[in-house]
Amino acid sequence: MKVTLPPALRDEIEQLHEDYAETMDHLDIKAWPSYFTDDCLYLVTSRENHDAGLPHGTIYCEGLAMVRDRAAATLDCTVFEPRHLRHFIGRPKVDAIDGDLVRTRASVLVMESVSDKEPHVLIVGQYHDVLRRGPDGLKFKERRVVYDNYRIVNSLVFPV
Amino acid sequence: MKVTLPPALRDEIEQLHEDYAETMDHLDIKAWPSYFTDDCLYLVTSRENHDAGLPHGTIYCEGLAMVRDRAAATLDCTVFEPRHLRHFIGRPKVDAIDGDLVRTRASVLVMESVSDKEPHVLIVGQYHDVLRRGPDGLKFKERRVVYDNYRIVNSLVFPV
Amino acid sequence: MKVTLPPALRDEIEQLHEDYAETMDHLDIKAWPSYFTDDCLYLVTSRENHDAGLPHGTIYCEGLAMVRDRAAATLDCTVFEPRHLRHFIGRPKVDAIDGDLVRTRASVLVMESVSDKEPHVLIVGQYHDVLRRGPDGLKFKERRVVYDNYRIVNSLVFPV
Repeated sequence: MKVTLPPALRDEIEQLHEDYAETMDHLDIKAWPSYFTDDCLYLVTSRENHDAGLPHGTIYCEGLAMVRDRAAATLDCTVFEPRHLRHFIGRPKVDAIDGDLVRTRASVLVMESVSDKEPHVLIVGQYHDVLRRGPDGLKFKERRVVYDNYRIVNSLVFPV
Repeated sequence: MKVTLPPALRDEIEQLHEDYAETMDHLDIKAWPSYFTDDCLYLVTSRENHDAGLPHGTIYCEGLAMVRDRAAATLDCTVFEPRHLRHFIGRPKVDAIDGDLVRTRASVLVMESVSDKEPHVLIVGQYHDVLRRGPDGLKFKERRVVYDNYRIVNSLVFPV
Repeated sequence: MKVTLPPALRDEIEQLHEDYAETMDHLDIKAWPSYFTDDCLYLVTSRENHDAGLPHGTIYCEGLAMVRDRAAATLDCTVFEPRHLRHFIGRPKVDAIDGDLVRTRASVLVMESVSDKEPHVLIVGQYHDVLRRGPDGLKFKERRVVYDNYRIVNSLVFPV
């Protein structure tokens, strides 16, 4: 089950995690789709659903077009209170390397700060990722954000 | 006081921390004793007690048999509300390397999620570990979990 | 914008972050000034002010003498309830290397624990640092602590 990870690959995965986190923490939603492959899956779901094999997603995007649509909707249509996110990501664990695909997981804590309230836990859980190497480096073929928390406080405006 | 740490040893310690965290975050209590040496000490205690040199433990296990007993009790006897843990661990600091023993510390944040409530901080504090190298790699000869928080909310069902 | 970081420099920066965090988590305020250059800037400010280019600081120290003064004031004059801090720091991002200066950022979460209350988020935000290499290794020429949170709960007794 455990895969020995070449240090250069670990470094590359950690860098990807941090670049993604930095992009989202700057609410740079326009850059968000650039992290995904054309045939990607982006899913935010509860641990309860994930463990039961249920497909429901708090956010569900199948394919890059849906990711772009979500980004456009967030930027142009959604009305929400201003907020800031801050991601904290654990050391990545690699479950398998299959050809150009890398299956990894990492713990994630996303804190959300809004005005007039104390910062709260937006998401605490784990990323379940499938990465594919392409000409621009590693991209997410799948990013499943599986959250432990019982519910999302208020709403999930930005992707995490 | 400060010990220069060979990168391979740092990597090994970080891997041990993450494997342990992953095991506990999956509530895989059966695998928990495999992280300890026969003559281990596992102690969860408050910073107040630790700093005063007091031996009280919220969980106190002296020797592998007590660790196994605690695991069995948690699995077979304890009645508790379902919950999920998620560990976040800082970069390990090495205080000393004495023969086959390595003394390390690392900051730790354990978030607990239960149903019907927002996730809360179960433990925020520091691991004080003594690691011993054996045929299966590094194991905990001592793991002292020293928590800063004033009290444990509700109860400490699972080891951390 | 993105700078390729030699692994040895990343390691050195991560070590500096952890040493600083360890010093502050032990409330070793006497050692705090040793992390700064003579011509340093230490600033704790809100993201709102930072993004608007406003100079207000919750803590503002220009030059090592002001840092020392703040340390002395905290140690000798300030009256406050006992408390513990615990820093969690993300992977550093390097924005630029200019001669002997390194511009870096890193996410930071500081949890504060006081008696009779649950631990709370003191600071969630990002370090914006300028590091300078000297005979004693890297020091902070600038450390701006930019917090996302709407306000500081209670008060910021210790530097973060």
